[in-house]
Amino acid sequence: MSIDRLLRQSAASSSVISLGGGLPSAALFPRKQFAKAFLFAMSEPRCCALQYDWPEGQNSLREWVAQRLRHRGAEVGKEDVLITAGAQQALALAASFLVQPGTAVDVERETYPAALELFRRRGAKLVSGDEAAGCIYFVDGISNPRGRIPDARFRARLLQGDTPIIADEAYAELSFGGALVRPLVADGRSHVWHVGTLSKTLSPGLRLGWLLPPRPMLQQAIELKQTIDLQSASLSQVIAERFLEQDDFEARLARQRTFYQQRAETLARALRRFLLDWRFSEPEGGFSIFAETDYAGSDEDWLRVAVSHGVSFDPGSLFRSQPNGTSLGMRLSYSATAPNALIEAAQRLGKAWKAYRGQA
Amino acid sequence: MSIDRLLRQSAASSSVISLGGGLPSAALFPRKQFAKAFLFAMSEPRCCALQYDWPEGQNSLREWVAQRLRHRGAEVGKEDVLITAGAQQALALAASFLVQPGTAVDVERETYPAALELFRRRGAKLVSGDEAAGCIYFVDGISNPRGRIPDARFRARLLQGDTPIIADEAYAELSFGGALVRPLVADGRSHVWHVGTLSKTLSPGLRLGWLLPPRPMLQQAIELKQTIDLQSASLSQVIAERFLEQDDFEARLARQRTFYQQRAETLARALRRFLLDWRFSEPEGGFSIFAETDYAGSDEDWLRVAVSHGVSFDPGSLFRSQPNGTSLGMRLSYSATAPNALIEAAQRLGKAWKAYRGQA
Repeated sequence: MSIDRLLRQSAASSSVISLGGGLPSAALFPRKQFAKAFLFAMSEPRCCALQYDWPEGQNSLREWVAQRLRHRGAEVGKEDVLITAGAQQALALAASFLVQPGTAVDVERETYPAALELFRRRGAKLVSGDEAAGCIYFVDGISNPRGRIPDARFRARLLQGDTPIIADEAYAELSFGGALVRPLVADGRSHVWHVGTLSKTLSPGLRLGWLLPPRPMLQQAIELKQTIDLQSASLSQVIAERFLEQDDFEARLARQRTFYQQRAETLARALRRFLLDWRFSEPEGGFSIFAETDYAGSDEDWLRVAVSHGVSFDPGSLFRSQPNGTSLGMRLSYSATAPNALIEAAQRLGKAWKAYRGQA
Repeated sequence: MSIDRLLRQSAASSSVISLGGGLPSAALFPRKQFAKAFLFAMSEPRCCALQYDWPEGQNSLREWVAQRLRHRGAEVGKEDVLITAGAQQALALAASFLVQPGTAVDVERETYPAALELFRRRGAKLVSGDEAAGCIYFVDGISNPRGRIPDARFRARLLQGDTPIIADEAYAELSFGGALVRPLVADGRSHVWHVGTLSKTLSPGLRLGWLLPPRPMLQQAIELKQTIDLQSASLSQVIAERFLEQDDFEARLARQRTFYQQRAETLARALRRFLLDWRFSEPEGGFSIFAETDYAGSDEDWLRVAVSHGVSFDPGSLFRSQPNGTSLGMRLSYSATAPNALIEAAQRLGKAWKAYRGQA
């Protein structure tokens, strides 16, 4: 995995501006409030934060998840929610039931790499727009890597059949406009596996996400969760609970949307100025811009040249269900990089691109 | 799952003394030191505790694990250690490579229930002492549920073949005598999958364990870890690291051994006094006593009568690879129950047993 090695090297080097990884900004971590929540948890007599818990997770966190979904039109209760170790584990649990060797999984042309990797590892056949698919994986709310709001008619069409849908809302709450659509699970309770997370809005280091399987599958999902890691971290759950009890989460989301939108605009402007051969759509939410060119080349070579110019990114092929024979693309995450560094990164990308084209 | 429901009810009831679950005592949680470690983590500029990390885990925690194994004779480095979400995830990762439908997995006659459940779910055939097994699962150091030190000749025989061994050291450090044997991985590096955890000695709420696969399998294990949950909780890892840097862990273990040994002796004495038909071996470490009788009956009925008398336990069948047709047994955990309550629990068990025998 040479791309993996390049990304690790560049992440470890202070001279490389890394636009790789969907990392939230450390500037938005609520450190003081977490510390307060932590100290409170340590003072509880039984100290549940440090003890074992049941596999489905802490009830008040489950209720928080259910309540937010109810506000958006889904008829769900806390008993429907399984707390997971991030959205990735929720995907893995859903895939254990839905994706077997040979299963055709319908995915977008570009989508979340670790989901593709999960499906491939389970022996899935990745397809796009195939009506005979055994399962649909769909990044809802805000797409990844493009950061765009999915088309309403496309969403409606998804719900027409009864094909199981894994609806991954990892970035949904970070739609810059702030409008949260009715979740797919509200109208497809019998076949939608709803996935969400605190990783983008609160902290990925907690490893907290959730899965709402169709009701008949819930007990089996809880039992599977128990065999794979017993339960999600009590410590993270208790801190999140105590924190969320005190926090105005909607106000927090509003601040985050403004924060990330400003970074998105900064990077978009700089790319238009310094990187002329590449095109992209302005993000409507999330952490990243997906830039593309008609130039067909090697992702790895292009990344290597970029790193030698002091900038890195996630190569486009990671996001593609059919990686071969396509033109160069790259995901540029603006979320965890300060505005000045974003402009500098775009400048370096421009220089690197000239060098890369000169070589080729 | 009626037994599951009974155990949940009794855990939630203040009138039932629960001897179920392998829970560490909350009295031993280092709350203040954790709080100090947490506050330190929140003050770090990049706040790694709240951010994403690589799938293999934090390097200084990996080094801590490797160093302790080196002191016991194993030639391993930090790069051999994969940090997992508790020992259970380490078992699940190992089983993904070693246990396929039909694989004969050699287990002890009584062993850790969640491992049995994991192997069953993967379609394994559970055997005991079968030389043709495709994989051996062995609770090393201190057995579960018996809390006994495994026989040295038996351990030596395990290493004679090249059958893959999952060596689960969950309780090994809590051997009351304090002597830690040379780990199986030291002499079977090519076929031992070493599993350990902080859940019993520090806190299960952190969800931190580790897996050392045979070296040729390490990269694949890390990649699998990434697809199932990306990484273990950064927050837990950073707290554990900061804590372990400051802590005298050996002195902590010594205190814990004394603490749990006293509880073991209290419960053993009370059982001998109040529960005459049952036999057990004095534990040599760990959290529990496994009591047995020649009476063949229904685990569930016996548990129900016990709960109605204000005491609960983990029924013996949970621990048995071949649950049917065996006599009654039960695991009684003394670890998380105060001495007076242990005596009271034994008394209640005695009364419940008379009532149960009277019914039958």
